[in-house]
Amino acid sequence: MLKILNACDLTPGEEIENRLNRLRSRMAAQGISFAVILQNVDLFYFTGTVQKGVLVVFSDKDPLFFVEKSLIRARIETPLDIIPIKKDKDVGDILAEKRVLKGQGSMELDVLPVANYERWKGILGYEGFLDISPLIRDVRIVKSLFEIAQIKKSGDITSKVFTKARDVVKEGVREVDIAATLEAEGRFHGHQGFLRMRGFNQEMMNIYVTHGHSGIYTSAADVPIAGVGVTHAIAQGPSINRMQKGYPLLIDYGGGYNGYISDETRVFTAGDLNGHFQKGYDVAREIIEDMESYGREGIDGTELFNRAMDRVKKAGLEDYFMGHGEGKVGFIGHGLGLEINELPVITPRHHIILKEGMVFAVEPKFIFPDEGAVGIEVDFIVRQNGLERVTDTPVDIVRV
Amino acid sequence: MLKILNACDLTPGEEIENRLNRLRSRMAAQGISFAVILQNVDLFYFTGTVQKGVLVVFSDKDPLFFVEKSLIRARIETPLDIIPIKKDKDVGDILAEKRVLKGQGSMELDVLPVANYERWKGILGYEGFLDISPLIRDVRIVKSLFEIAQIKKSGDITSKVFTKARDVVKEGVREVDIAATLEAEGRFHGHQGFLRMRGFNQEMMNIYVTHGHSGIYTSAADVPIAGVGVTHAIAQGPSINRMQKGYPLLIDYGGGYNGYISDETRVFTAGDLNGHFQKGYDVAREIIEDMESYGREGIDGTELFNRAMDRVKKAGLEDYFMGHGEGKVGFIGHGLGLEINELPVITPRHHIILKEGMVFAVEPKFIFPDEGAVGIEVDFIVRQNGLERVTDTPVDIVRV
Repeated sequence: MLKILNACDLTPGEEIENRLNRLRSRMAAQGISFAVILQNVDLFYFTGTVQKGVLVVFSDKDPLFFVEKSLIRARIETPLDIIPIKKDKDVGDILAEKRVLKGQGSMELDVLPVANYERWKGILGYEGFLDISPLIRDVRIVKSLFEIAQIKKSGDITSKVFTKARDVVKEGVREVDIAATLEAEGRFHGHQGFLRMRGFNQEMMNIYVTHGHSGIYTSAADVPIAGVGVTHAIAQGPSINRMQKGYPLLIDYGGGYNGYISDETRVFTAGDLNGHFQKGYDVAREIIEDMESYGREGIDGTELFNRAMDRVKKAGLEDYFMGHGEGKVGFIGHGLGLEINELPVITPRHHIILKEGMVFAVEPKFIFPDEGAVGIEVDFIVRQNGLERVTDTPVDIVRV
Repeated sequence: MLKILNACDLTPGEEIENRLNRLRSRMAAQGISFAVILQNVDLFYFTGTVQKGVLVVFSDKDPLFFVEKSLIRARIETPLDIIPIKKDKDVGDILAEKRVLKGQGSMELDVLPVANYERWKGILGYEGFLDISPLIRDVRIVKSLFEIAQIKKSGDITSKVFTKARDVVKEGVREVDIAATLEAEGRFHGHQGFLRMRGFNQEMMNIYVTHGHSGIYTSAADVPIAGVGVTHAIAQGPSINRMQKGYPLLIDYGGGYNGYISDETRVFTAGDLNGHFQKGYDVAREIIEDMESYGREGIDGTELFNRAMDRVKKAGLEDYFMGHGEGKVGFIGHGLGLEINELPVITPRHHIILKEGMVFAVEPKFIFPDEGAVGIEVDFIVRQNGLERVTDTPVDIVRV
């Protein structure tokens, strides 16, 4: 096993301890006595393994980690003590015997289905859980040095994919063929396989290649540009549309290394871009560069959004910014970590003060109806004195 | 739009009407007055589109289909009338005005998170919903001619991938590199991009390539062989393990066309298989062939399982069948459709009488601890007089 996996990738014990302590202090502050954690990503964050199990965190005592399978893998991967179980009901019996469930309980109510919740209420003999997810999201908002190292490795995969794209993107080639070749390239360089997005009905791909009309159709997803896809059954992603001269081709790629996501977009073109597109690209680039020079610990996310919007308005591109008509979304940036929709969200709607170690993607994008879309996406790590880019891939338009 | 998508792939209107009628008759029989359907896959099944919306089905009147976005796509894709909305709350206002919510309500409680459920209870001003999912799963168990045509197209992609595998699988090549190349191949031939699996924490990949030790480690997933993956953060899928002589390499590939899934496994080897593996393969093949000659409409799924188990016992391979130790799963087959875990499940635990139009995968697999895994997976369509294979890809071991 350890010959196949890289031992250096395992989450360090002190990292797990620190994460649990941060959750426990938040629970204590809110009067929550215990949290029953079941979702894959949260389990991974707090235990270091995504094996089938249940983690119970207490505000005032050590956590209990129950594992059904694979015990072999869980024992290698987590620094926590493991209580082996045969079935989920065993958790209820053991907790009842220990008499540790007291006071206000909590579960991940934003992702836990009603039927599972009802079953767990029966198993635990407990009712009326609060939602622990806002506290978990808050713990996860600031990344540790270990996490930032993983995000940078994820960014390295993203950079390699954009390098390969210079050979793959060509006039006449289908979006989906470009996507397939680049997705494979990511895997060759260590991509984990898929990306995670938190919440009901959230589906996503590792790569979106959009060109011309593919960029203007809205999807069910809360993103500015999702593509048309190859079927109405999965109405997003690259389509069979072929690259033509004069229209930008956008590659929005999500790197994934050891659970951690990077998410960047670059522009490719055959021939010159026409006026609208060039202007959109220029404003997007200005927004990225302004953010990079202005953003730092202590700045409010709404201020970043408003500065971007001022530039957009000055350029007269308001109608096209971050979608057009029904497709407009209310943010220009989103947090990155184990999920692609973490905090902070860069939006005018929520005040979040940037703090060292936060990581987010900024994606100024313009959708011109009847023409297509253009935009850039860059990932930033918040530092005390500025924003640090996750990758060193230039944002220049790539002419193919 | 229609130039990019294939109009022939759109779900026919009479198909949608038939599906809704089958749900309505089941609802009436159970005393359920209305169902509020929100999940992507169920929405797609009953409306023909996965745009952001809400479908309300009534036992005694026409359904109401509310769409937030994309209205443009939804109008092209669904034969149903659309009620445009700006936000989810509009649904509550319109339904209140129409005074149509009466009697027993239902929602998809197996997938709907608690927080979403609470929000919808507020929007609808209604409490105490039953779970509609068992009825939806029952409606979906028998596939129409249109659906079977999509599954066969999905199977065609799977066949093309297995053909390509003959060139790609070689001694010394990493599992993940084989997987990446074949995943791209599937996309080149029309694969939809990802596969769907119903339920909390269900994560999956399009392709599993496992070899030697990679096949013996259990994962959190309810499958016999999931692979080790390239990271403990996504502890499944192909690993960096390289193919060696004498050990079988298994490719478990999920085709996906227009929403519909095919799911087959073939065995590749460099050099002869050693005794255990060859015996396991032979028994797996006998099980598939026996099932093909015995299975037909009217047969009970438990009988199929028991016949397979008799062969396994006769061969003395019981300890290794469908997993070993903590990794043992309780089925040898699972239904296929828009999700990879549909009904029928072929298990000793549930009686399901096969009916024409059901589609399922049968995957007799053996896990030999300290050695590796071997097995085959074949998809069948239930006919009155037998089982029809979805693909024509032979199950012979491929020597590379």
